[in-house]
This record gives sequence, C-alpha cells and structure tokens, in this order.
Amino acid sequence: MENPVLVEVLRGTAVESRHRGTVAVVDAAGKTITAIGDVSRPVFPRSAVKALQALPLVESGAADALDLSPAELALACSSHNGEEVHVNSARVMLVKAGLDEEALECGTHWPKRMQDVAQLHRADVCPCALHNNCSGKHAGFLGLARTLGVATRGYIEPDHPVQMEARAAMEGMIGMSLSDMARGTDGCSIPTYAMPLDRLAQGFACFGTGEGLDPIRADATARLYDACVENPFMVAGTGRFCSQVMGALAGRVFVKTGAEGVFIASIPEKGLGVALKCEDGATRASETMMAAVIEALIELDEDESKALAPWLKPRLENWNGIHVGDVRPVREAFQGMRRAAG
Amino acid sequence: MENPVLVEVLRGTAVESRHRGTVAVVDAAGKTITAIGDVSRPVFPRSAVKALQALPLVESGAADALDLSPAELALACSSHNGEEVHVNSARVMLVKAGLDEEALECGTHWPKRMQDVAQLHRADVCPCALHNNCSGKHAGFLGLARTLGVATRGYIEPDHPVQMEARAAMEGMIGMSLSDMARGTDGCSIPTYAMPLDRLAQGFACFGTGEGLDPIRADATARLYDACVENPFMVAGTGRFCSQVMGALAGRVFVKTGAEGVFIASIPEKGLGVALKCEDGATRASETMMAAVIEALIELDEDESKALAPWLKPRLENWNGIHVGDVRPVREAFQGMRRAAG
Repeated sequence: MENPVLVEVLRGTAVESRHRGTVAVVDAAGKTITAIGDVSRPVFPRSAVKALQALPLVESGAADALDLSPAELALACSSHNGEEVHVNSARVMLVKAGLDEEALECGTHWPKRMQDVAQLHRADVCPCALHNNCSGKHAGFLGLARTLGVATRGYIEPDHPVQMEARAAMEGMIGMSLSDMARGTDGCSIPTYAMPLDRLAQGFACFGTGEGLDPIRADATARLYDACVENPFMVAGTGRFCSQVMGALAGRVFVKTGAEGVFIASIPEKGLGVALKCEDGATRASETMMAAVIEALIELDEDESKALAPWLKPRLENWNGIHVGDVRPVREAFQGMRRAAG
Repeated sequence: MENPVLVEVLRGTAVESRHRGTVAVVDAAGKTITAIGDVSRPVFPRSAVKALQALPLVESGAADALDLSPAELALACSSHNGEEVHVNSARVMLVKAGLDEEALECGTHWPKRMQDVAQLHRADVCPCALHNNCSGKHAGFLGLARTLGVATRGYIEPDHPVQMEARAAMEGMIGMSLSDMARGTDGCSIPTYAMPLDRLAQGFACFGTGEGLDPIRADATARLYDACVENPFMVAGTGRFCSQVMGALAGRVFVKTGAEGVFIASIPEKGLGVALKCEDGATRASETMMAAVIEALIELDEDESKALAPWLKPRLENWNGIHVGDVRPVREAFQGMRRAAG
C-alpha cells in the first residue's frame, strides 16, 4: 500500500517537495476512527513512547521515594533542548538518586539552540551527558534502578530490569507482546521495539483517559499526563512543537515527538489516541501532520487556533528573512477526520 | 505516477524510513538512457545549477579580466562549508572586483562545521555574508556585474542583467525557455526556476562533453568542469559528498548537490548527464542515490570503490558511536542502469 502524500513543501506557489505518511486515530477500546495509509505496519516509535517508558518510575513508587516533582516527571518524558533549566533539572534528578552525570549512558551531544552552544564555546567547555536530549528519561531510569536496588551500570541494556520494566509497560499499554517485533538500538542506546501505529494510538487513548487500566496504572498515567501538560517547557523547550502546543492547549492534549517523523497524541476529551509516521522520517512533516490532526479532531478557540497556526502552515524564510515558501498539510487528506471523530 | 522507493533507512535489519525519488540519465543529444519516476516533472534545481549560472562569468571575459584562479572559479560553483579557505577565497574574489563583503546580498548563516562555529563564538564574532554557503557564487555574480559596468546593487533581482545572463545560460544548456516555468526565490535570494529533470540531465551531459555547444560555451564549460574537479575542496569542503567523490574520481565526474534533495552529475567518459531529486527533499537520500548511480554507470577501480563506499551505504551511529543502522539504495531500482548505459 502506497502511503499518501500528506504534506507539501511549497516554494512560492509551486510544490517543491512532498512527504507521505501514515496516521492512526483510535479510541481506548481499540476501535479505529481514522486510518490513513498502512496503520498496521510496525514502526520504531523512538522518543514518542517516553511517557510509557516512564510508567515504572511512578508505578514502582520510585518517583515518590525520590521525591520527584511534576517538572522532573515531565523531564523524564522529554526530548529536551539542553537549555539550562533542562540540564540543571536532570542533574538534580540524579542527585536525588544519589548519583551524578557519570552514571548516564545515553551519550553526549550539543544543545539544540545556538545560544546554548555559544555559551559552552565561550566557556571553552564541551557538553556532557546532561545535555543529551534524553538525559531526563535516563535520570528516571537510574532513579528506578536505585529504588529497585539493582545495579545502575548497564541500565541501557535490553535485559536490564529497568528496560524489561519499560518494555512490559509498553506491552501492557499497546496490548501486545513485543517478543516477535523488530528491535533496534535507539539514539540514546536503549532498545527500541517496532510496533503498529494503530496499537500505539490505542495505547495513548488509554494513557489519556485511564480507560481499561488497573487503578495503579490509571493513576500513573494521569500523573504523567498532568506533569507533562502542566510543565510543557520541560518536555522539549523553547520554540518546540510539543512545548508550544501543549502550552497553548492547556491540558486538552498530550503530544510527543519521536525521531524519524513519529508523533503521538492523547486527546482525552474525545477519548482518542493518535499515532503517525512520516514515511521518510522528516520532523517538519510529522509536526505539520500532527497540527492538522489536532485541528481536525477538536474545536479550537481563537487563542488556540492562533497558537497552532504557525505549526499548521510553517513559513519558510531564506537567509535574508524573505518569505520564500511554506509547508502545508494536504487538506483533502485530513478532511474526513473531523466527521469521523464526531 | 508514484515515484518508487529508491533509498531505505535501516535500524538494525528493519526498514525504519523510506525515500522516494526520480532519476534521469540522458546523453548530450537528449536521448534518455534511464528514467526512474516522473523525469518530466519540473523541479527547482537549487544549487545544482551553480556551474551553469557561472557560465556568463567566464564567457563574458570577466573571469579573465578579474584574473580569477581555477580555485576561485570552483568557489563560484560552490555550496561551501564556510571553512577558513572558503571565506578567505570569497573575500579575495570580491577584492579583485573592487568590492568587499558589504556588496553581498545572499544573507548570512553559521558555518557548517562545529569547529568553525566554535572559533567564531570564542572570538565573540558573528558570521558575515562571506560565511554563507553561496558567497562564492555571489562573488562571481558581483564580479560579472562590475565587468559589465552595471550597478551591483540588486544583483540578486530576477531582472538584473546578471540574473538575466544566468537564466539565459541555463536556458541555452537545457534547451528550453524558462518563461513559463515556476519561479521561486532561493535560499540566497536569487531566483530559482523549475525545470524538468531530463532536460537538466541533458544539460549536464553537454556540460561535461561540450557536445552541441558553440566554441565559446564549450571552452567555458570545460574551464568550469576542470576548475571544479581539480579543486573539489572549494566546491563544498571537509566531509562533503561533492568534494570527497570528485576528489576520489579525479576528473571522471563532476557532481553538485542542490537543496531539497537534488543532485546532478556530468560523466564525460560515457557522454552522460544525471539529474535526480529525492521526492521529500532529503540530502541523505539524494547522496545515496547519486552514489548508486555513479556505481551503476562507471567501472570503479579499488581505490575509487573504497572512496565511494561510505556514501553508498552510510553508517548510522548513535550518540555513543554505536552502529545502529544504515542508509542504503534499493538495489533493484538501480540494476537496470548498468546495462542501459553500456
């Protein structure tokens, strides 16, 4: 099955490039409301499942034992920019677990924003593992390891108790075993398991509503949902889709991006979950797709529409700041969604 | 017509993302040797046509009047990294035209390599227009303007003599008028005209062989071809496909990348030109496609194969340097090319 073109990149009025993708909108009972493209094809969800991977941290009692704040729980679900707040918060999370950055096994990379890079250069300092966009998640993993009383070394390995717990949480939420699914190594070195988009969407419908979950899990999902939507800056950072959209929609949706063009959303007021993948892996397209899905599924007031607008049709500007083009969703592709969602 | 998948991105052994594209291989007489996807669909060639846009600089006598070296001619065809050599060379080209960086209208952006960015930060200096990857091309445009005795201000405008000359050169080389074609504004603010890939390929077949060109143009194409293949570092820079591949193939091919997944090549020993576009605009895919095309069309010796190998199946490594996946061309898609090229 060919995935349809969902996003076009315009230069002037001409289509310059095109992005294809797959979108699944599913309710907590597993009913597919909308399917665009091959929604049963397994996809590596990458960072989009961080909130599921953080469930053991809460359910085990570790989050309470370590006295993690909601902002820190949000960081445990984040792919952050490596801004000062993110870096400091990850450091404090490790301190609460009696650890420091040496314990992190996620690897190191530069912060996302040029001004944060500049600060490091001017201080003649290299980034450390705390700057890694996954450092909050990994701090959460380490906190869980310490609370479980298991070795922290090797916590990134697939057979380490922390990764086994994370995997079990994902399996529980998507309602299927990952034993026969493809497994890869993620950017931050933990395992990533391929899973069908429709199952992922159902999982996030349950994540948002608590439906079909036992009480401990229902509480944990609510706690993580609230932590993220009330601390959106921690989930990503300045100028980022997840932070800006969750900030503007004030609790109505939880969204999370994943590398290689993946995006998920929980929309509790509609009892829905969304999972999508841009076929070629482009984030500029997955963001536009998710904005189009949100616009189709929920009624937005004026302020909410205004906040979503730059993500719905991002402007392309050249090196002189001239408006040279736009990224836009293919309207016809998303039109059916509004009616289907009811 | 659906463009076929030409490149796959693997995580482990599983396909994570896929890139579709279009490839045209055409001879100087306009005969299409291989066509993959819709090769008649107009495409903004972006920087891939810089060598054609540089023809007036040479044909007008301006290159000689300004005493431009082959390295400087190569820079006039470049999308460079903004390394010290590139920046200094662009500066000298402007000096030769009696100008300085204030005359550049391309806009400014940071250099490509982190170490060059670091150097600016440590000196507490912002980049200037010389760092713009198109500064060499623009220095060429300015040199042409001065030699023609026209105003340099506004040289980026579509109706400025310099842009009219560049357009006429492109029209002559691809054998068609651009009057009815879509026009956009490029990243560096000059106009970009959409043109069919098969015509673009034919144009670069002529560029490489001189066939079908009047003596002045044939000389000019040879001069620019030689300048680029003998000064490959100037055309892009450290770690870049165009520089590494032209360096390794020592004159056998001229290649040039363009934004949004465009690539061209001239292969004189086969009398062929190549033009390709990754549908979604990804450079990681257009590079892999071009490597696959080169491998299919010419016999490579051991050293040449070794140099091309990392571009034919790029390794993906994560933040810990672990090999997590690969980018690879879809073999079946390129198989027919070897036989067709003869």
